Amino acid sequence: MSLDREEPNYYGAGPALLPTSVLQQAAKDLINFQNIGIGAGEISHRSKAGVSIIDQTKEQLTKLLDIPETHEVFFLQGGGTTGFSSIVANLTASHIKKTGKIGTPYYIIDGTWSKKAYEEAERLGYNPKILVDTKKIDGKFGTIPSIDKWDIPSNLNEISFIYYCDNETVNGVEFRNFPFDKFPNVELVSDMSSNFLSKKVDVSKYGLIFAGAQKNVGIAGISIYIIKKSLLEQANVEELKKLNVPIVPIAFHYPTVVKNDSAYNTIPTFTVHIVNLVLKNLIEKGGLNVQEEENIIKSNMLYDILDKYPNVYKLPVSKDVRSRMNIVFTIKDGSLDNEFLSEAEKKNLSGLKGHRSVGGMRASLYNAVTIKSTKLLCEFIEEFAKTH
Amino acid sequence: MSLDREEPNYYGAGPALLPTSVLQQAAKDLINFQNIGIGAGEISHRSKAGVSIIDQTKEQLTKLLDIPETHEVFFLQGGGTTGFSSIVANLTASHIKKTGKIGTPYYIIDGTWSKKAYEEAERLGYNPKILVDTKKIDGKFGTIPSIDKWDIPSNLNEISFIYYCDNETVNGVEFRNFPFDKFPNVELVSDMSSNFLSKKVDVSKYGLIFAGAQKNVGIAGISIYIIKKSLLEQANVEELKKLNVPIVPIAFHYPTVVKNDSAYNTIPTFTVHIVNLVLKNLIEKGGLNVQEEENIIKSNMLYDILDKYPNVYKLPVSKDVRSRMNIVFTIKDGSLDNEFLSEAEKKNLSGLKGHRSVGGMRASLYNAVTIKSTKLLCEFIEEFAKTH
Repeated sequence: MSLDREEPNYYGAGPALLPTSVLQQAAKDLINFQNIGIGAGEISHRSKAGVSIIDQTKEQLTKLLDIPETHEVFFLQGGGTTGFSSIVANLTASHIKKTGKIGTPYYIIDGTWSKKAYEEAERLGYNPKILVDTKKIDGKFGTIPSIDKWDIPSNLNEISFIYYCDNETVNGVEFRNFPFDKFPNVELVSDMSSNFLSKKVDVSKYGLIFAGAQKNVGIAGISIYIIKKSLLEQANVEELKKLNVPIVPIAFHYPTVVKNDSAYNTIPTFTVHIVNLVLKNLIEKGGLNVQEEENIIKSNMLYDILDKYPNVYKLPVSKDVRSRMNIVFTIKDGSLDNEFLSEAEKKNLSGLKGHRSVGGMRASLYNAVTIKSTKLLCEFIEEFAKTH
Repeated sequence: MSLDREEPNYYGAGPALLPTSVLQQAAKDLINFQNIGIGAGEISHRSKAGVSIIDQTKEQLTKLLDIPETHEVFFLQGGGTTGFSSIVANLTASHIKKTGKIGTPYYIIDGTWSKKAYEEAERLGYNPKILVDTKKIDGKFGTIPSIDKWDIPSNLNEISFIYYCDNETVNGVEFRNFPFDKFPNVELVSDMSSNFLSKKVDVSKYGLIFAGAQKNVGIAGISIYIIKKSLLEQANVEELKKLNVPIVPIAFHYPTVVKNDSAYNTIPTFTVHIVNLVLKNLIEKGGLNVQEEENIIKSNMLYDILDKYPNVYKLPVSKDVRSRMNIVFTIKDGSLDNEFLSEAEKKNLSGLKGHRSVGGMRASLYNAVTIKSTKLLCEFIEEFAKTH
């Protein structure tokens, strides 16, 4: 039975491409893990082998991101959407423990996903406020308004946390420099789902970083959380009920999850194992320095070629916040969209259609997309421009 | 690269054994799914291939369980523990929509898992009541008390739903005949995580059946829900807030999940695909009639051999409710526990240790455990009895 494949040229936004060698190892491990006779999906999450998968994954993440002692790694099922609900619940409970007050969560809305996060906090009854909403200021997503346009409360103490999305997958907007210094002692939550491990990050600046696995680090079904340990101190159920604050479902109660080493409930061991293999691969490749450099090269290459043909391609995102992961562009003559996609398919370049909510094109250059594959895409884009 | 393995003799309680042929197909599909060039974990859940996995899985389930038009299948991430939280929220919202009142959820507590479900409903603030608690009546889990001992409210209309666990994995207790006729027009919720697809079930009698995949139908990370469509009519957020009833996280709001064909948020496609393959395998084998018959043979074989040596083995579960899936027993001379386990391991019989909370032994005879493998276990148990 063959486990080979031609190297795919796939630019989907997620679930996304994974290194073939990682998938081959995972495929073997699905049948017989470390010669114990059964597969990584069949072992108990409480067995020695199961626990070692969780522990190794945590260790490798700690190494790659240089996670300080002040922070803790854990895993939760689900992705961004489950994060939206559990984050506001847990961080509110932390804020109550610390200050005795419910506080107000503040959201930066610079694209589809941060907007959804804000809406969920509102739906659940946490009365969130908007720190800045790109669409209200600039009429559309594609920029990050300068900080003088943000609606910062005069008393920072009323902020339970600030939430932002570091890379907006749908809109192709990525933060370059978050203004950390404007928010001293405020807990910062960052959704890094689609640029996690694409670059170095100073973890110490964050209260919480979270990321669904299905972009740079694995298949769908698991999310990675890196939390400041002090945020695990939370008001208890009785205190929350007294204040009429919603209780988070137990499987998403971070202190319970951390206390049980991410296995309070059954963790999808095989899915975590794939993350483990991706991290190993990344460490062997040279770590985040090497990966970040590669990602800069790839994205520059693609943006350069798109910029070269302004009569054919349109780039809706402001240059200073262009995402290195999700390169969003449209073809000026919209009637050529289908031709673009079908000609690309003929060259085995796939996954280029933009998100259903915004249309156009999107090429995602996640870690597993090689420089070679990016070059092929650039060549096609140039050829298409020259012939249309 | 070999995808072979010796047929394992593994009796773990879950995550559990899967048919080797299913895992081999899944392993191939992880690299290149249906020759599209990328794997089943890399495709978009909104792509044609991704949607077809969800649809096929639903179709096969409908066929296997003869699910009537009145009911709907959907998938959620997580397992039992996430179910505990979302079920009480969704069914309360349904009850409010139907009656205008919050109502009271009633729980049957006949083992570890139903107890946890009750505790979560209490923790979240739904004020559940206990219909019957085996431990309070019989001092320990291992029976299902006769219905005259149940604490049934005189007015059944105040019950928002009745919750029970059809098979208690830790305690080895399984319902044979649920007294449906005693609860006309009451919505019944059944946790079938550990005996799902082990037998025929009359779905029409249930408001909701749910099951984590990691016993009979797949690897950890996904749960299957079968809901009566009328229960998707629910009070909305404003109505719930007015009544001070908690709001369920959006990813677990059943009407939203169903409306989006289980893909409101990113569904773990590869994990669902494994379920799909297990179902295909089960249909090819002859369906639930054949599987149920096999499970009766296997469990009778094992109980018979344990009953044959009452001086060596003790069976804590009452004969009328002995589980066909999880056969719980202890060795009378507890000092022999380690010897039993290590001698079993020498014969490559593994996964026999009882749940950490109850000790002793547990042999789980899920669908993927063959008659041949059960025989090997029986032979070992007999030999051990004769020599000790």
